[in-house]
Amino acid sequence: MLHGGEIYNSIEVRYDFSVNINPLGIPENVLRSLRKNLSLLTQYPDQECRDLRSALEKYTGVPARQILCGNGASELIEAAVRGLHADSILLAAPSFSGYRHAAESQGCRILYHELRREENFALTDRYLEDLAQNPGLAILCSPSNPIGDRIAPDLLLRIARTCERQGTWLMVDECFLGFLPDEDQSTMRRFLVPAAGFQQFQRLLVLDAFTKRFAMPGIRLGYLMAANPEILEKIHAQQPEWSVSIPAQTAGIAALQTGREYMEKARALVASERKKMAAALEKLRCRVFPGEANYIFFSSEKELYEPLLQRGILIRRCDNYKGLEKGDYRIAILRPEENQVLLRALEEIIGA
Amino acid sequence: MLHGGEIYNSIEVRYDFSVNINPLGIPENVLRSLRKNLSLLTQYPDQECRDLRSALEKYTGVPARQILCGNGASELIEAAVRGLHADSILLAAPSFSGYRHAAESQGCRILYHELRREENFALTDRYLEDLAQNPGLAILCSPSNPIGDRIAPDLLLRIARTCERQGTWLMVDECFLGFLPDEDQSTMRRFLVPAAGFQQFQRLLVLDAFTKRFAMPGIRLGYLMAANPEILEKIHAQQPEWSVSIPAQTAGIAALQTGREYMEKARALVASERKKMAAALEKLRCRVFPGEANYIFFSSEKELYEPLLQRGILIRRCDNYKGLEKGDYRIAILRPEENQVLLRALEEIIGA
Repeated sequence: MLHGGEIYNSIEVRYDFSVNINPLGIPENVLRSLRKNLSLLTQYPDQECRDLRSALEKYTGVPARQILCGNGASELIEAAVRGLHADSILLAAPSFSGYRHAAESQGCRILYHELRREENFALTDRYLEDLAQNPGLAILCSPSNPIGDRIAPDLLLRIARTCERQGTWLMVDECFLGFLPDEDQSTMRRFLVPAAGFQQFQRLLVLDAFTKRFAMPGIRLGYLMAANPEILEKIHAQQPEWSVSIPAQTAGIAALQTGREYMEKARALVASERKKMAAALEKLRCRVFPGEANYIFFSSEKELYEPLLQRGILIRRCDNYKGLEKGDYRIAILRPEENQVLLRALEEIIGA
Repeated sequence: MLHGGEIYNSIEVRYDFSVNINPLGIPENVLRSLRKNLSLLTQYPDQECRDLRSALEKYTGVPARQILCGNGASELIEAAVRGLHADSILLAAPSFSGYRHAAESQGCRILYHELRREENFALTDRYLEDLAQNPGLAILCSPSNPIGDRIAPDLLLRIARTCERQGTWLMVDECFLGFLPDEDQSTMRRFLVPAAGFQQFQRLLVLDAFTKRFAMPGIRLGYLMAANPEILEKIHAQQPEWSVSIPAQTAGIAALQTGREYMEKARALVASERKKMAAALEKLRCRVFPGEANYIFFSSEKELYEPLLQRGILIRRCDNYKGLEKGDYRIAILRPEENQVLLRALEEIIGA
């Protein structure tokens, strides 16, 4: 599976719009903490990630014993597929290829719920029909990837209730939710904590990662949250004995201590630049699909990937996603000056 | 599973003899390279670990395409158990608990080959009888852990031939072999490379890690070698998509560039200190079991763990290994001045 970042080794890319990470870059205090703690590397990492989970409790409001850390979200997805003994998995198409990778590597049957272009690839009530097949696990991402739209809160709640009732595990991947203006009000974490005053869902798992939020994909670090610590124990048993390295634990703790301004600034940047970029793309006769995430999904009749690459600009072509086709692209929202470079290049290519 | 290093968080340990890592500590150039490359963390790691595997090819003589890197040896063991579809696994008892962890988490049937105290827990021809049960996978460690003796070369070769003939996968864990004076002449890697002039074993997997050799357990990094790249592909499919972080790849490449003197000095230190420590322990009426590794396995009638801990010294009590009992201990060989501290404490405790 070729991922955007993978191409680095062969082509000189000056502007990378293929990777959806925080445009502000890795927080300085993460680098400082890594530098400062290098001498710890002669120790084994804490298998239970106690300090990191306690920092996550403060950051998310979810008690530490309801949090499991892993070597990237991808490790947790695969460990979950095994630990939950899911024999079938319901995936949306298109969606992040990592879910399919996890399902296929464990020999699970995959059921696809097809999102429709004419519905802007949004999740609709039709999903409940596929859910009625009673899969062992259903995975959803909100905001979705690569589209970037959030699942309607009311629909997501009905899905969670259905899963609870019929015994389907529901994993909601929120790794891009931090870029939305109302994360705290819309996160599914609210349904894991009794204090929040909402119904607690025993069949709900909420996934998040440091990768996008803190712009550190080189460090592998994700976390999975559940109402019931016992299911996390079962998933933990499917991880390697020392899964999260000391640099990852160190970087994670430092990242969570980054001031609130960092994410506030990122959200403001994403919101204003997204609006500007979407309008400019539409002006260039691209079809921009509705979304709120730190990336834009659009389609263009003109081939864009190669001509952009020739200019040192990498975007994500999406035709290898199930359900998408040639001409579908995803671009990350970067800093204003970088976004300008992309827009000018697109004007040259499409305007020509 | 409580591991030596795990205790760090609750008790102040000034001398840690419970962890078997290189007494010279992490090479300075590893720390330098990590510091220098922190800015890379905003990129995704290379999923294929190309630069690292090419450095490993130079270091081991095994071609890069016959090497698979992982998030610590433990991730590779677990991915191998899944990728090989082994339904039964033959383990020596006692041996490293990680093998059992991997087997149990995947629901494999475990067959135990019992090592005998009266045979110094050495592997003997009796092993071939248990191998005749035709397990899917057999795992051996040479030098063994926690005993520290190497498997007789002639026996190991007969085991490998038997596995080849009957279709049993044989994984030989060599993570302590680097501390022996004749690693190059005794490594099972010789049977993976046609150029070496030995028979190539298609059913052989050789495991190694950076943890012990380069004193960096905080970084998770191991590698698995095989004659046939196809089996490594199958195991790779059982790893998370981005398994080896950028700090791990960076540290690994730097470690392999460490001058030959580093391991030569470590080997000389281990050999001379081991001899000295073993003699002193015997003088203290301990039974020291034969071995060559960078640690010593012994038994004592006197309880040692708690009184040493009260003095800020941590050793590994081994009664939680299958086949071992109260009074069995393992100590790492550290630097001469540290070993002296341990000896003096033992004299106080046992002599009293």
